[in-house]
Amino acid sequence: MLRYLTAGESHGKALLAILEGVPAGLKLDAQKINYELARRQEGYGRGERMRIEKDKVQLLSGLKKGITLGSPIGLLIENKDSSIERMPPVFFPRPGHADLAGLLKYGFKDIRNVLERASARETASRVAIGAVCKVFLNEFKIKVSSKVLLIGGECSPQAMMRKIIRAKNNKDTVGGIFEVEATGVPAGLGSHVQADRRLDARLSQAIISIPGIKAVGFGLGFGYAYRFGSECHDAIYYAKDRSLPAGRQGYFRKTDNAGGIEGGMSNGEEIIIHACMKPIATLVKPLASVNILNKKSGKASVERSDTCVVESAGVIAEAEAAFVLADALIEKFGGDFLEDIKLGYRNYLKRIG
Amino acid sequence: MLRYLTAGESHGKALLAILEGVPAGLKLDAQKINYELARRQEGYGRGERMRIEKDKVQLLSGLKKGITLGSPIGLLIENKDSSIERMPPVFFPRPGHADLAGLLKYGFKDIRNVLERASARETASRVAIGAVCKVFLNEFKIKVSSKVLLIGGECSPQAMMRKIIRAKNNKDTVGGIFEVEATGVPAGLGSHVQADRRLDARLSQAIISIPGIKAVGFGLGFGYAYRFGSECHDAIYYAKDRSLPAGRQGYFRKTDNAGGIEGGMSNGEEIIIHACMKPIATLVKPLASVNILNKKSGKASVERSDTCVVESAGVIAEAEAAFVLADALIEKFGGDFLEDIKLGYRNYLKRIG
Amino acid sequence: MLRYLTAGESHGKALLAILEGVPAGLKLDAQKINYELARRQEGYGRGERMRIEKDKVQLLSGLKKGITLGSPIGLLIENKDSSIERMPPVFFPRPGHADLAGLLKYGFKDIRNVLERASARETASRVAIGAVCKVFLNEFKIKVSSKVLLIGGECSPQAMMRKIIRAKNNKDTVGGIFEVEATGVPAGLGSHVQADRRLDARLSQAIISIPGIKAVGFGLGFGYAYRFGSECHDAIYYAKDRSLPAGRQGYFRKTDNAGGIEGGMSNGEEIIIHACMKPIATLVKPLASVNILNKKSGKASVERSDTCVVESAGVIAEAEAAFVLADALIEKFGGDFLEDIKLGYRNYLKRIG
Amino acid sequence: MLRYLTAGESHGKALLAILEGVPAGLKLDAQKINYELARRQEGYGRGERMRIEKDKVQLLSGLKKGITLGSPIGLLIENKDSSIERMPPVFFPRPGHADLAGLLKYGFKDIRNVLERASARETASRVAIGAVCKVFLNEFKIKVSSKVLLIGGECSPQAMMRKIIRAKNNKDTVGGIFEVEATGVPAGLGSHVQADRRLDARLSQAIISIPGIKAVGFGLGFGYAYRFGSECHDAIYYAKDRSLPAGRQGYFRKTDNAGGIEGGMSNGEEIIIHACMKPIATLVKPLASVNILNKKSGKASVERSDTCVVESAGVIAEAEAAFVLADALIEKFGGDFLEDIKLGYRNYLKRIG
Repeated sequence: MLRYLTAGESHGKALLAILEGVPAGLKLDAQKINYELARRQEGYGRGERMRIEKDKVQLLSGLKKGITLGSPIGLLIENKDSSIERMPPVFFPRPGHADLAGLLKYGFKDIRNVLERASARETASRVAIGAVCKVFLNEFKIKVSSKVLLIGGECSPQAMMRKIIRAKNNKDTVGGIFEVEATGVPAGLGSHVQADRRLDARLSQAIISIPGIKAVGFGLGFGYAYRFGSECHDAIYYAKDRSLPAGRQGYFRKTDNAGGIEGGMSNGEEIIIHACMKPIATLVKPLASVNILNKKSGKASVERSDTCVVESAGVIAEAEAAFVLADALIEKFGGDFLEDIKLGYRNYLKRIG
Repeated sequence: MLRYLTAGESHGKALLAILEGVPAGLKLDAQKINYELARRQEGYGRGERMRIEKDKVQLLSGLKKGITLGSPIGLLIENKDSSIERMPPVFFPRPGHADLAGLLKYGFKDIRNVLERASARETASRVAIGAVCKVFLNEFKIKVSSKVLLIGGECSPQAMMRKIIRAKNNKDTVGGIFEVEATGVPAGLGSHVQADRRLDARLSQAIISIPGIKAVGFGLGFGYAYRFGSECHDAIYYAKDRSLPAGRQGYFRKTDNAGGIEGGMSNGEEIIIHACMKPIATLVKPLASVNILNKKSGKASVERSDTCVVESAGVIAEAEAAFVLADALIEKFGGDFLEDIKLGYRNYLKRIG
Repeated sequence: MLRYLTAGESHGKALLAILEGVPAGLKLDAQKINYELARRQEGYGRGERMRIEKDKVQLLSGLKKGITLGSPIGLLIENKDSSIERMPPVFFPRPGHADLAGLLKYGFKDIRNVLERASARETASRVAIGAVCKVFLNEFKIKVSSKVLLIGGECSPQAMMRKIIRAKNNKDTVGGIFEVEATGVPAGLGSHVQADRRLDARLSQAIISIPGIKAVGFGLGFGYAYRFGSECHDAIYYAKDRSLPAGRQGYFRKTDNAGGIEGGMSNGEEIIIHACMKPIATLVKPLASVNILNKKSGKASVERSDTCVVESAGVIAEAEAAFVLADALIEKFGGDFLEDIKLGYRNYLKRIG
Repeated sequence: MLRYLTAGESHGKALLAILEGVPAGLKLDAQKINYELARRQEGYGRGERMRIEKDKVQLLSGLKKGITLGSPIGLLIENKDSSIERMPPVFFPRPGHADLAGLLKYGFKDIRNVLERASARETASRVAIGAVCKVFLNEFKIKVSSKVLLIGGECSPQAMMRKIIRAKNNKDTVGGIFEVEATGVPAGLGSHVQADRRLDARLSQAIISIPGIKAVGFGLGFGYAYRFGSECHDAIYYAKDRSLPAGRQGYFRKTDNAGGIEGGMSNGEEIIIHACMKPIATLVKPLASVNILNKKSGKASVERSDTCVVESAGVIAEAEAAFVLADALIEKFGGDFLEDIKLGYRNYLKRIG
């Protein structure tokens, strides 16, 4: 079983994460993680903070000479701006943010106590975790990637960019839709036998857990509601062609409306997930809010923020998807020693091929 | 912590479920559960099986004189048709179903070994579990309901019905979109502090875990991708009006685009979830498939099935949502004795009011 | 991952259990489970109830034609005496029982609401679960057994029996110590990398969770406190002798003071656990107690009970140990299809041999 | 729910831990944690490493101005000696250690890959976690302490010390028995309703998970095997005396043979646990072992180590017990905001008083 915990506030000393259950024998270096961290910080529409923090991970544990030990991987990303103790209190909760609910739940008198942890900065930890999972999946030729499909209702790159500029000029924000794809996933990850073992259920939990994600779909997603069954299920074929890569021989489909998941299990086709990132809740031209001390109306507080983070959200969702797939793979093939897992994996492909 | 396991095959002896963590002191009878089970079996577009099985639950444990004991609730629903041992083997996997992936994963030679558990019949257990959770939530004036929004691309009841008839006449199936609403949910269920504690993440896992659900959204859902931030976040207001029901006094919104969840927590507004149920995968006029024994092409097997189950899917999703909300409530207020929980709940409403 | 939930009161309709995570392809019949259930009911010192209830399990799910399907195993044991609704209330909590703490925790006014679930009868469910696990372990030549070491301070069978007779004549009860052994366990189950993955920690949780068990030890157990390190650690040897059974070739020990577990992992030697079962808390000649209604002193209530159940406790502990070992084995080798697991297991033995 | 993960190797860069689920509003400073870390490093019989590492914790997250935020607490302890990359490989597994089993499980060629994580140094993380839990429990007047009962078969302080000296002079090691006590624990933590919710089961898992602990008992422990039921259960009394501290009024016992736990729940009396720490497995005068490369016999490797760590083991066990008790308390009273929990706690004491 793969599991993780993250910790860290936006302006605290550091972000940290512990990833438990990574097999021994995996080659891993900080560079691959830093590459993903950099990807998270890029994208048209990112703001000032991205120029302050160039995230670099420290691998504090779980490795010797660049090879994993089977022990927990400790990941630490220092915050350049660690001014949490000196930052001013916040009294006007921002609509769309954790601010108000967090304040009430935890009995705070200062919204900063919520927003420091609710900040999107926490997702750097998850990208670091996902980067380790990607390195692991790569040993099985499983690749996870993402792309932006739509921003502010626009589909073409040019129009998306214009939308972001317009939002920025209006001191507004804009969201969008991205797609995550995983290729090379063998049939049979996840299970139909119990609700919480279903691969799509686990993927949706992982992706909706990213701050700002409000919807998720697999394959046709909501599009299934507009078609007949005969128009949308993916007919099954079989090929003995040995020139195909291992794992792609045997049963296959010509369509992938299911997004690679049937009955809560991967079916051997490409996994296709799309998700919607809402416009960032911190607005430079803020919405109506209420002062939590005296309950008087006012404008929501303004924190340093970005205009559009859909591309970054895709990178974070890749990380979450990689985590879920790595977990499901370890559940199926065991998780102690990479060579053992690979042998079991090859034998499985042979059996189902 | 509330948790459950279900067991049972479609034509096995019975479906059963154990629900662990229900507080002591709750009045509970089979009638309320049977009412929900009947709701699951209704809806335009249901097929023959629904006339065979009139589900009745047996409460085997966790109660004395109609009051819960804090011990696990054992639920059993007998199958009238328990012919699993005599049913013919199945060799042509149905596209859109667990059939093929399950066959490969578990090393079977007969697809019936998959489909008996992957059957939608299993969801009766979940409805029974959700019915208990609803009774619990009702003590806190939290109500969960659902409605069908769209079937086969049609929004009006008349057109939806015609679409189902057309599908049935064509030996086809049709899916759709439903909405789940939860009213009376206090602010502060779930948490922003760790990925797997987020309420929306937990709700999405629960709802995507229902067979056939391919997409889920909260509030505006994918609609967020088409608006500016200033157009979609829900401005915050405050009212001292004591004539409002407890829990609705204090902070409130005039819009609910967020679907009642911000930062992974309920914000005190109505929770609004919508989800897409794909057309049923069993087609009377089947798609192409492959014989698993000799790998020759053929038609997918045909099992007794329905034409449209979107309404039922809504009922099942209510159950899943009720489970998640009850779990989150118990997490926040403790879960031993109903009167203790109610006192804590009242004190919390007073504090945040 | 293997997991289970049990449900059921002592005089409710039935005991039930769901065991999740049993691989597909395992031959399983009720007879093997009933054999273990009968063993639980035997032993010198058992009382009247044992003659009323001859436990027979019903396998409600997870099987077809006697072969497991990978889906949850539903187990049901009917109670012959299901008079829970008619039984008189209980007002004097029994020292040594869950009675008082359960009453306070759950806000009851009748101790029966506690004792019906706290009853040792619940352990029949666990024995049924453990019996399934034993069948699985048997496929890997792993055997779990138990024996009584001491009763009421006596070590010889004759003296133990006399002690039980003496206790019974005095309307008293008596406890003792039993040993659980597991043979054929390969090196490397459990892990040193995280506290909750240690095999001995998991075994101790499982065994202490049996009602009445107050102490547990591995190998020398508390005896380690009386020796020097040089006197108690098990020196390591190596043999290439191919006449030895698979899994016993290679590294071995001449002593087994560690009880087969080092660093939270099985080390390939016999696992040896001993545990102490306290004297049954229900005394026919009861201790002082207090009426929960008026707080006046009196004698603890008397329920139908046994004189000595140490032998049965050993059978239950076997079941718990079998569950933990099966879980750890599945964690290491995957848990979907028996033949896949066996192949992985053989390859592992070859690697470490 | 309270949960934690630790990470870190003995000679890696740092030990780290994330503790999830600590309520908001708790005053916490590094000093209290450092105090416990120092206690872990003391005790007669500790070796050289203790003089190298004076453990100081860094609180990296979860706090602002010394008050917890409800978010995960990130704890980091730097290793002064972080030479893991330069340390020589180890080829002779030490009997009594994780060395051999870990080597086989994880497919290593160097035992250092096991022993760096299996090292007792990891327990510093746990002590840090437990220190936070103690601060939390202190808000409810719950105190956890420990004392050494026996070392190398000796009970008197003088004789214990002589035993340690003798062991050291003989290049040997010695173990012993310690006791952990928790006072002020209210009745009703844990539960009888499901195996894995029992307080004693959870405590035993936590304590056996400490490296080197081979046995654990509650109250009389194995002593229960030598008495009749009438001699060992704790008769129940009641007092209305308002001069008693809250939580101690009402039901009470004059004896505490049960060690404060009945039916898997705290009963309001002092919780008493004793456990056995085996002699340290690293011997300066080593036992027989086998070279893992060529399988030739030799002497086990020698790592820098201590002579006796029973006192430290008690400190670690306090930490583990504090974690379990804090978790059980949060489970019962909710875990978001300290003041809410305290109010619920007071109301509970009032109800059961």
